[in-house]
Amino acid sequence: MKSEIFEFSVQIYYEDTDHSGVVYHSNYLKYFERAREDVIGIENLVELWKKNNLGFAVYKVDIVYHEGAEFGDKLKIISQYEFDGKYRLIWNQTAWRPNSKKPAVDAIIHLVCINKNKQLVPIPEVKLPLHS
Amino acid sequence: MKSEIFEFSVQIYYEDTDHSGVVYHSNYLKYFERAREDVIGIENLVELWKKNNLGFAVYKVDIVYHEGAEFGDKLKIISQYEFDGKYRLIWNQTAWRPNSKKPAVDAIIHLVCINKNKQLVPIPEVKLPLHS
Amino acid sequence: MKSEIFEFSVQIYYEDTDHSGVVYHSNYLKYFERAREDVIGIENLVELWKKNNLGFAVYKVDIVYHEGAEFGDKLKIISQYEFDGKYRLIWNQTAWRPNSKKPAVDAIIHLVCINKNKQLVPIPEVKLPLHS
Amino acid sequence: MKSEIFEFSVQIYYEDTDHSGVVYHSNYLKYFERAREDVIGIENLVELWKKNNLGFAVYKVDIVYHEGAEFGDKLKIISQYEFDGKYRLIWNQTAWRPNSKKPAVDAIIHLVCINKNKQLVPIPEVKLPLHS
Repeated sequence: MKSEIFEFSVQIYYEDTDHSGVVYHSNYLKYFERAREDVIGIENLVELWKKNNLGFAVYKVDIVYHEGAEFGDKLKIISQYEFDGKYRLIWNQTAWRPNSKKPAVDAIIHLVCINKNKQLVPIPEVKLPLHS
Repeated sequence: MKSEIFEFSVQIYYEDTDHSGVVYHSNYLKYFERAREDVIGIENLVELWKKNNLGFAVYKVDIVYHEGAEFGDKLKIISQYEFDGKYRLIWNQTAWRPNSKKPAVDAIIHLVCINKNKQLVPIPEVKLPLHS
Repeated sequence: MKSEIFEFSVQIYYEDTDHSGVVYHSNYLKYFERAREDVIGIENLVELWKKNNLGFAVYKVDIVYHEGAEFGDKLKIISQYEFDGKYRLIWNQTAWRPNSKKPAVDAIIHLVCINKNKQLVPIPEVKLPLHS
Repeated sequence: MKSEIFEFSVQIYYEDTDHSGVVYHSNYLKYFERAREDVIGIENLVELWKKNNLGFAVYKVDIVYHEGAEFGDKLKIISQYEFDGKYRLIWNQTAWRPNSKKPAVDAIIHLVCINKNKQLVPIPEVKLPLHS
């Protein structure tokens, strides 16, 4: 069962681009993480980390680049997640350039939760409405 | 004669921090640039670049680090500029952690404008109200 | 038909890690790109860009994270490629922590070549011995 | 009394540049840090961190940008330090493009040492031959 669809926006600055004139490919992973943190709630992540010694970690990414975003673009990041058992959260995330009909980049990202000893723990219940 | 004072906000994500637990020192230069681009106007910068082949470049930075920002902080960036002749724009920029009485980081940053041949040109008149 | 196997090494600095104590996940894409540039030859890439207006672009990445590298690690990047037709170069790349028996991260990365108008062109013959 | 002069080299990759065609200004701070870590010894820094809970932190940077490095450049980083009392290490660092007669970037960088409670401690004696 999939979550609702979340929207987040990312402004593209000088720092994001490379000398070929478009956004450097690894940066989209940063934008997708910012968007996920926005969904989960940064204050929740801080509390999990400080009180429970828990953090999310990316386990797997499948990403396809269709078009390069440029300096000045305001990207729209669309995110949706679903649980895959108790230990994995699967995110479907896309990045859209202004006025475009197809996503510039799309990705499927698997998140797990680990404690300070790097051991897997069940995904905690933090503002993720579909948790069963 | 100094400009008015501008405010900009920056959310600190995983990507911003390093293993010591605070924001990596060079990242504040990115936040200050984002804030300057917000003051000048990103659409103005895109137009300058595409139509006039002009871009701003950092010539000089004096920066002091008083306190490290942490994951989850929402920093406030305070910016003010003044012209130093026709060729140089001097920015006074500070980064503030939430609820703090002193800036975490303060900087003086000198900006110049260059064309595609890397030659200095006068600062163009783009939404910078104090240009004389 | 697969290429020979190439080795490249990456030192992990403060800048590479995040506050959780391990390397930030998107940075491995940078290390893999550095290793590919080393295989292709940076001087070849500069010449392609300046004389022929051609550049490589990442089209697709499938990456799995098994273990987090830490500050001070010297990672070994192992790379191998094969052509998939004239237009695509598929790389198999892994990152190894010191003295480990399994890769910390493994990835399959699809590279294409584009001109300044962002049109696909055949992969150029630059120090890639298996080109048919 | 100044230390000997240390040399370190940095290859400029796609990730280092921005859409204006040169290295993004904040990245030189990363190169200077890599060079300092090389002088101090990364294994020493790891041991200080893990055993003594101590880390170096940048307190102050004065940096001037004379010329932009480009994709493909192999920069030479020249570093020299001196102690300023027991609590501060002052580094003089410059970045040189290939075959150039002047540094592209020069900086004076003040380093301090802090414990896990963010309190200043004297600079530890780690492979820094001029410590008095």
